[in-house]
Amino acid sequence: MKKLLLDVDTGIDDAIGIILAAKRADVVGITTVNGNTSLDYATANTLKVLNLIGRTDIPVVRGADRPLLREPHFEVSVHGNDGIGGALKEMDAGEPASGFAPDFIIEMAQKHERELTLVLTAPLTNMALAIRKEPRLRDWVKEVVIMGGAVRVPGNITPTAEYNMYIDPEAAKIVLQSGLPITLVGLDVTEQTLLTDVEIGRMQGSPEGEFVKDSTGQYMKRYKEITGIHACAMHDPLAVGVALDRSFVRTGRLHVDVETNSDLCDGQTVADFSNWTGKQPNLDVCLEADSGRFIEYLVETMKM
Amino acid sequence: MKKLLLDVDTGIDDAIGIILAAKRADVVGITTVNGNTSLDYATANTLKVLNLIGRTDIPVVRGADRPLLREPHFEVSVHGNDGIGGALKEMDAGEPASGFAPDFIIEMAQKHERELTLVLTAPLTNMALAIRKEPRLRDWVKEVVIMGGAVRVPGNITPTAEYNMYIDPEAAKIVLQSGLPITLVGLDVTEQTLLTDVEIGRMQGSPEGEFVKDSTGQYMKRYKEITGIHACAMHDPLAVGVALDRSFVRTGRLHVDVETNSDLCDGQTVADFSNWTGKQPNLDVCLEADSGRFIEYLVETMKM
Amino acid sequence: MKKLLLDVDTGIDDAIGIILAAKRADVVGITTVNGNTSLDYATANTLKVLNLIGRTDIPVVRGADRPLLREPHFEVSVHGNDGIGGALKEMDAGEPASGFAPDFIIEMAQKHERELTLVLTAPLTNMALAIRKEPRLRDWVKEVVIMGGAVRVPGNITPTAEYNMYIDPEAAKIVLQSGLPITLVGLDVTEQTLLTDVEIGRMQGSPEGEFVKDSTGQYMKRYKEITGIHACAMHDPLAVGVALDRSFVRTGRLHVDVETNSDLCDGQTVADFSNWTGKQPNLDVCLEADSGRFIEYLVETMKM
Amino acid sequence: MKKLLLDVDTGIDDAIGIILAAKRADVVGITTVNGNTSLDYATANTLKVLNLIGRTDIPVVRGADRPLLREPHFEVSVHGNDGIGGALKEMDAGEPASGFAPDFIIEMAQKHERELTLVLTAPLTNMALAIRKEPRLRDWVKEVVIMGGAVRVPGNITPTAEYNMYIDPEAAKIVLQSGLPITLVGLDVTEQTLLTDVEIGRMQGSPEGEFVKDSTGQYMKRYKEITGIHACAMHDPLAVGVALDRSFVRTGRLHVDVETNSDLCDGQTVADFSNWTGKQPNLDVCLEADSGRFIEYLVETMKM
Ligand SMILES: [Ca+2]
Ligand SMILES: [Ca+2]
Ligand SMILES: [Ca+2]
Ligand SMILES: [Ca+2]
Repeated sequence: MKKLLLDVDTGIDDAIGIILAAKRADVVGITTVNGNTSLDYATANTLKVLNLIGRTDIPVVRGADRPLLREPHFEVSVHGNDGIGGALKEMDAGEPASGFAPDFIIEMAQKHERELTLVLTAPLTNMALAIRKEPRLRDWVKEVVIMGGAVRVPGNITPTAEYNMYIDPEAAKIVLQSGLPITLVGLDVTEQTLLTDVEIGRMQGSPEGEFVKDSTGQYMKRYKEITGIHACAMHDPLAVGVALDRSFVRTGRLHVDVETNSDLCDGQTVADFSNWTGKQPNLDVCLEADSGRFIEYLVETMKM
Repeated sequence: MKKLLLDVDTGIDDAIGIILAAKRADVVGITTVNGNTSLDYATANTLKVLNLIGRTDIPVVRGADRPLLREPHFEVSVHGNDGIGGALKEMDAGEPASGFAPDFIIEMAQKHERELTLVLTAPLTNMALAIRKEPRLRDWVKEVVIMGGAVRVPGNITPTAEYNMYIDPEAAKIVLQSGLPITLVGLDVTEQTLLTDVEIGRMQGSPEGEFVKDSTGQYMKRYKEITGIHACAMHDPLAVGVALDRSFVRTGRLHVDVETNSDLCDGQTVADFSNWTGKQPNLDVCLEADSGRFIEYLVETMKM
Repeated sequence: MKKLLLDVDTGIDDAIGIILAAKRADVVGITTVNGNTSLDYATANTLKVLNLIGRTDIPVVRGADRPLLREPHFEVSVHGNDGIGGALKEMDAGEPASGFAPDFIIEMAQKHERELTLVLTAPLTNMALAIRKEPRLRDWVKEVVIMGGAVRVPGNITPTAEYNMYIDPEAAKIVLQSGLPITLVGLDVTEQTLLTDVEIGRMQGSPEGEFVKDSTGQYMKRYKEITGIHACAMHDPLAVGVALDRSFVRTGRLHVDVETNSDLCDGQTVADFSNWTGKQPNLDVCLEADSGRFIEYLVETMKM
Repeated sequence: MKKLLLDVDTGIDDAIGIILAAKRADVVGITTVNGNTSLDYATANTLKVLNLIGRTDIPVVRGADRPLLREPHFEVSVHGNDGIGGALKEMDAGEPASGFAPDFIIEMAQKHERELTLVLTAPLTNMALAIRKEPRLRDWVKEVVIMGGAVRVPGNITPTAEYNMYIDPEAAKIVLQSGLPITLVGLDVTEQTLLTDVEIGRMQGSPEGEFVKDSTGQYMKRYKEITGIHACAMHDPLAVGVALDRSFVRTGRLHVDVETNSDLCDGQTVADFSNWTGKQPNLDVCLEADSGRFIEYLVETMKM
C-alpha cells in the first residue's frame, strides 16, 4: 500500500479525497490549513470525516491559520460557512494531535524516507513553511501531488487563477520552485472530473455515500449557477487518485511559475509550453484525465 | 466599398494585409509605427508594397518611433532585419506624406465620421496617442479591428503574451479601455489561419504572389522550428479580413484587460469568460475562424 | 527677457506663478491640463487670471483631459471645487486658442529653438505626449523646469509621492527619462517657500493682491490642518522663479526615477544620492532654496 | 538584568552587538540566519565570538538558510567573504545547539513570558517563520527591537532600502504587520552612531578590543569609499543598546509598511508621518539617537 500524507482545508472535496485515501492507502497523517474554511473548521471537519469512517487512528495535525503574507479569504457561497455544506453537524470531532503541520510533514518525510507521497489539496502555506525549515525534504519525499492551478483553462476565482494558488501565491511560488518532484493536478483535468446525481445515487446505503450527498448539495447548486451543470468537480479526490494511480492522467513536463505581483493575474500558474522563457521544466502537469475511469473507481471505493 | 485605415509595422503579414485591403476596400491611408521592425523600415516597407501594387496614391503617414513607456524590441529571427525577410530590396520606397500618424487617424476619423474602420495590426502606440488627444474618436470611428492578444491559447513571445500587446502593453490598456467598438483578432484564430506552400504556389504569376513567396521564406522556416509546421500564420491579413467581412469569425463579447505590471504576464490579454471580475464586456473577441474560407478568399484576392 | 511657456492645471499656486511669469518674462503661451482641477476649470481659471492682469494676448491652449493611463483625481479639499478657492467667480474667461497643448509645445519649441524654457507646474501628461510625438524636442528646448517630486522629504498626497508625480506617474517617467535638460523643483524646496498673511497684506491694493488673498483662504486653512502653519507654499511660483533666476536654488545632479508599479510608492521620485544604481544622472534637483529672497521678489512683482 | 534573545547574521556589527549584550544582559540564546553572510558562516562566527568572550554557555541555534521567497545576496565588499573581515580565523567554533531558530524563539518566548526582548539584527526570515507558526507570540514577547529600515534617510543597498529589509522584504512585511510591540532602529539613527579609530584605540588591551580592530578594518575602508568618513556605523550594537536602555533614542509612533512589489523601491520602509494612509501606527521608529553617550557606553562595556 502506498504511504500518503494529506494536507487539507476540508472542504467538501477534501473530505471525499480523505475517504478515498483512507480506504486505498496507508495514510500516515493529515495536516490542516486555512483555505476554503478556517483552520478550526478545516481541522474539525477532518476529524469528523475520520470519525465517520472509523479511522480516528489517523493523526490530524493543525498548521497555518492564515496565508504567508495575505489575509484569509473564504468562499462561503461554495463550501458553506463550515466548509462542508452543513454536513456532519452532530458528529463528534474529538481533538487533533499536538504539533504543527510543517513539523509533522518533515517528521513523516524523514521517517518514511523516499516512501512518502504528499497530497496537497489546499493552499500551500504548510508545505512552504516546511520547505523553508528543512531543505532536505527534497531528498526525503518520494513525490508531491498538488491540487491547484490551471494551465490551459480559466481560473475558478479570478479569470486566470485557481483557488488554492490564489489564496497563497507566495507559498505556491516557494513550493513550485523548491526542486521537489511535483505533479500538478489543476483545473484542466479536475473540472472534467464530475460527480453527478447518478453516481451519488449509486453510493447511497453507506455513511460515506450519505455524507457525499449531504455535503455536495449547496456546492452543486452553486456550480450549476456558474457552469450550468448540476455536478460536483472532484478536484481534491482526483489529486488523491493521481497519487494512488498515475495512469488516471496524462502529464507534460513543463516550466511553471506563479504570479504574485499583479492585480489582474495573482495566483495564475504560468506554464511555458513553447519554452519562451528558456527555463528548465519543474513540474509534471496533468493535461488530460481518464475521468470516467477515475469516477468509477471513486464510486466503487465509496461502496467498499 | 468599406473605408479602411490601416495602422501597421510592416512586417510580412502586415504587407499581405495591406495588399488584401488595397484590393478589396477603399483604403483612406496607412499609418506606420515601431513594432516588428523600426519605424523607418516599417514606413519604407509600406511604401514599397504600395509601389509594388501600383497604389502609391494611398497616403502613408509616420507615427511613434517607440512604445509609450518601454524600449523597442525587434524579433529579427522572425521578420528579418528589414521586417520583410529581405524582399523588395530593389523597390523604390519614395517618401511618406507629412504629418503624424495619431493626428492623421483623428483627421480621417472626423472626415469619414461613422464610416471608417480602423485596422490595427501593430503595437497600439499610435492609437493610444490618438485617443488621448481626441476623446471624440469614440463618436467618430465606426469600428476598430485589432490584431493582437491571445485569450485561450498561449502567447507568441512569452508564455502568455502576444507580440503586439507585449511591445506596448500600456498603449494596449489605453485602447482596450477606451470605450471604442473593438474586435480583437488574436492568436486564438490567427494561428489557425495558415498559408502553406500550396497556396503560395497558386498565387505565383503575379508580383504580389512573388512577394509573398520571397518574404515568407525565413518566417516559415522559423515558424517550423517553433511549431513543427511549415506555414505562415496570416495574423494581420485575417484582421483585414474581419474588417471586410465579419462572417469569417465567430466572436464572444467579453471583458478583457491587459497586464502591465508583471514580469511574468506583461502583455497578457486577460479575458473574463465567467465574469469573475463583475466588469462589463468591452470587446468582441474572436473565438473561432472559418480559416479555410478566409485563406481561399486571400488567395483569390492575390490573383486579382 | 526670457521666453517661457507654462504648462498648468490652474490651481491657486499656478495662478500666482502665471502672474509672476507674465510680469517678468516673455510668455509665449500657456497650455492647460487635467490635475488639481478638471481641464475645463484649469483652462477657464487660466483665462480669467490673464484677464485679471490684462494679458489676454497670451494664447492659452487646452491639452489632455486625463492622465495617460489613470483616472483623474482631484483634491477638492485643497484647491476648492473650481481649483482656485472660489476666486474670480465673476471674471470673464473668454475662449482658449484652438489646438492641442502637446502640438503647441512642439510648435513653440521649434519656433523659438534653443531659446524657450518650459515651466511645467502640473501633471506631466502634455509634455509626455509632446515627447512621444516629437523626439527632436530634445534639441529644440533650452530648459525644462518642473514643479514636482520630493527627494528627501515626504510626499503631499501619499507618504512618498508629490501630487503632480502621483497623478500621472507614467507621464512623469516618460519626461524624466527623455534626455531633456530638466530641473526638478520639488517639495524639498517648495515647502520651505511660504507665503503668510504678512506678505499677502503687503500685496493689497492691486487686483493681483486681492486675488491672492481671495484664492488662498481655503488653501491656507487646509495647510494649517496638515502642517500647523497658516501659510501657503509657493510650489508653482518657485518653479517659475527658478526659470527666471537660477540663483534662487542650489541643485544637485542626480539620477532620479519615478515609481509606477507599486501600491505603496506610486509617484515617488527616487533619487540616487550614492549611485547605488550605477546609472547616469538625468536631472538637476533642487536641494535648497533661498526662500526669503524669492518670497520678497514675488511680493515685489505682485506690486509691479 | 534584562533577558534578551538575539537573532543575527554575524557580521561585524552583529558581533559587537553580541559582545555588548552578553556583558550587559541575560542572553537566553542567539539564533542565526542567512544575511550578510551565509547561514554557515553566520553560525560559526557567532560561536567564535562567544568563545572569544568565554560565553559558550549561551546556546546558538541555526535558522533559515535563505529568504522566504528570494535568493540570498551577500555584500562581500563590506563584510568580507566570511562576514567578519577575516578576524577570528584560528578561533574554534564548536557546534551549535540542535533545533531550528523559529522554534527556539517560540520556546524561549513562552518560557520567559512577557520578560523577553527579541533583538533582531539581520533579515527577518526567522522571526517571520516564528510568527506564522505561533500567533500567540504577540502575547508572550515583551518587546522586539529591530535593526532595519530607513524612514527619512536614503538606503544602504539601493537608493531607498536598508540591507536587512531589502534581503527579505516579504519577511519584513510579516513581522511589521504582526501586531508585536516593535521598535525600529533604522539608518536614521545607526548611521549617526559611528565608531572611529579613537574609540577603537581606547578598547585595546582586551581580546574584545582586538577583535573589533581586526574585524572592522575592511568595513571602515569600504565605508570611507562610500561616505568619505573613516568610521564604522554601529548599526546592530545600537539596536542592542536600545533594548538595554531606551533612553539612547527618541522615537515616534508611526505607521510603517515595507515595499515588496517594486523594482525601484523593494525593501523600502515607508513611514507615514502625516497619516496620508489613514492607518494606525504599528511601530516605534527611532528618529534621533544620543549617539555620543551610546558610543561611550559601548567603549566602556568592551573594556569590562
Ligand atoms: Ca481543498
Ligand atoms: Ca504587424
Ligand atoms: Ca499646479
Ligand atoms: Ca546584522
